[in-house]
Amino acid sequence: SSGSDLIRATLFPGDGIGPEIAESVKQVFRAAEVPIEWEEHYVGDQIDPRTQSFLTWESLESVRQNGVGLKGPMATPIGKGHRSLNLTLRKELNLYANVRPCYSLRGYKTRYDDVNLITIRENTEGEYSGLEHQVVRGVVESLKIITRQASLRVAEYAFHYAKTHGRERVSAIHKANIMQKTDGLFLKCCREVAEKYPEIKYEEVVIDNCCMMLVKNPALFDVLVMPNLYGDIISDLCAGLIGGLGLTPSCNIGEGGIALAEAVHGSAPDIAGKNLANPTALLLSAVTMLRHLELHGKADRIQDAILNTIAEGKYRTADLGGTSTTSDFTKAICDHL
Amino acid sequence: SSGSDLIRATLFPGDGIGPEIAESVKQVFRAAEVPIEWEEHYVGDQIDPRTQSFLTWESLESVRQNGVGLKGPMATPIGKGHRSLNLTLRKELNLYANVRPCYSLRGYKTRYDDVNLITIRENTEGEYSGLEHQVVRGVVESLKIITRQASLRVAEYAFHYAKTHGRERVSAIHKANIMQKTDGLFLKCCREVAEKYPEIKYEEVVIDNCCMMLVKNPALFDVLVMPNLYGDIISDLCAGLIGGLGLTPSCNIGEGGIALAEAVHGSAPDIAGKNLANPTALLLSAVTMLRHLELHGKADRIQDAILNTIAEGKYRTADLGGTSTTSDFTKAICDHL
Ligand SMILES: CC(C)[C@H](C(=O)O)[C@@H](O)C(=O)O
Ligand SMILES: CC(C)[C@H](C(=O)O)[C@@H](O)C(=O)O
Repeated sequence: SSGSDLIRATLFPGDGIGPEIAESVKQVFRAAEVPIEWEEHYVGDQIDPRTQSFLTWESLESVRQNGVGLKGPMATPIGKGHRSLNLTLRKELNLYANVRPCYSLRGYKTRYDDVNLITIRENTEGEYSGLEHQVVRGVVESLKIITRQASLRVAEYAFHYAKTHGRERVSAIHKANIMQKTDGLFLKCCREVAEKYPEIKYEEVVIDNCCMMLVKNPALFDVLVMPNLYGDIISDLCAGLIGGLGLTPSCNIGEGGIALAEAVHGSAPDIAGKNLANPTALLLSAVTMLRHLELHGKADRIQDAILNTIAEGKYRTADLGGTSTTSDFTKAICDHL
Repeated sequence: SSGSDLIRATLFPGDGIGPEIAESVKQVFRAAEVPIEWEEHYVGDQIDPRTQSFLTWESLESVRQNGVGLKGPMATPIGKGHRSLNLTLRKELNLYANVRPCYSLRGYKTRYDDVNLITIRENTEGEYSGLEHQVVRGVVESLKIITRQASLRVAEYAFHYAKTHGRERVSAIHKANIMQKTDGLFLKCCREVAEKYPEIKYEEVVIDNCCMMLVKNPALFDVLVMPNLYGDIISDLCAGLIGGLGLTPSCNIGEGGIALAEAVHGSAPDIAGKNLANPTALLLSAVTMLRHLELHGKADRIQDAILNTIAEGKYRTADLGGTSTTSDFTKAICDHL
């Protein structure tokens, strides 16, 4: 199954339910005749000194060369002397923006039926600097780092995304009333970029108020851009509005146009290998990868098939209140194609 | 109206709608024959050098001496060389815990009808240290400080609150998977305190996951305790679940047993002086002050009267979809007493 007109993409099936839901993606992509050839990589069983983690150097090289990849859940092995797999990927591939489209799924009812927003999270700095120390016994501090370069880069990505995806507004989320210098710099960069996009509305919302508004009326928002930790919090909050991490796609954008799509839910070891997992988050993440490749026709077809299958309600996995196996659900999607 | 058996309490009516809603509290307290004598203090019109803010030294002394107070919204005047009024109060009175009871209001429908939780926020340190600086051009950092002393103190308050209020569980909210030293110390302190309260269940929840769970099913939580910024975010999120800051009480606990209850919404200058403001948040905050004074009989009576008035639905202010004035709504509450 190789050929010169196939696009090579890296696939990390990951741990736990990872291989099963990755299999689902492979089947759906085959049924939709997506011109992609997967290059599979697994997490190693020992620390690779070149990555300081269980991720192999070869697997990172694969993403760098292919420019696109898809990642299932990875359970970071317990122990010292190595870095978290997720953080290693972000760092080594310079995945500076995490993009999560979050929309109500037709036919899957939650308390909210009007969600349609995009969270864009700065993914490399802020509270994730790893710089922490004990000052004296009983007094510890951690450093939040905000740079002009990373803030401009993610703001630029957010406005470009808004413009190219027919979105109207970008909201910068912050706590600059308290962290005037760090979050203040982040806002300053957003304002600078906003001026270059006069057709996109721009506003600034304090994070506590933003969370209150999101749970009261998520339709108030469109595209949200924010520093790392706020993005971590708000993207999960938004996922909760539409049903949880099992349903929300995620894509990481790196320097040089790399895109690594990923399911952000856990590896669910309790149901691993039992053909019970819901592959929706990984499937919809794979769709964001197709969009990044500008294969919009295939992306639309697959997305519709997934959403129609869920909306129809006949085939649903247990987490959505159904009794289907992973393979039944996958087959139903293929039949909808 | 003075007398030796009256309890003196400080009242900061505050700005904007503050005086109107404070008037509502005074009326309801009078109607319920609460044995309290108010000592009113206003924000000054110039910086008091002893507080470095527009708050007068006398007003802080009043809270210190009375031990209890109630505060309306205060708009921090714009300009340099002085501190935010809220932060000054927290600092000068050492208000180490912010407590927000958050429950669905009978008869006022939101997307959630099963909310009944308490957020307890560390109120003095963390991301609010005010320590920030530019490292080089385009690179800024801010310091988050976590101390053993402040963490133990707020954890102790949370478990004691749970025990004395018939609550079953305390959840410590954190991001110790990323901030291992700072949030790690916070958790360590919570665990130490948890051991002294074997009858209270204890769990630890990562903040992103907590926010997702809260919007999916708030009934999963009981008492939540957390560092400053997480508390800022989560308490507003929780307020959103039941209708917003106009409906949620808040009380700050200080060293030496001081309690300063406050409405945490804004001063709404657009409707100030028009008899349109909703006094519910300030009224329910005043109720938490009564509970702090162990005047539970009066507290119950007033709380019931407020909730029944809202539930009945005949008298509601505009923010709740009604047409009542502040004074009509207040009178209806008094009639319910
Ligand atoms: C697992 C954890 C380190 C990670 C994060 O905090 O970024 C996760 O919550 C995420 O959002 O990808
Ligand atoms: C106004 C602001 C400084 C304050 C805070 O961040 O603490 C507010 O959001 C609150 O929760 O009281």
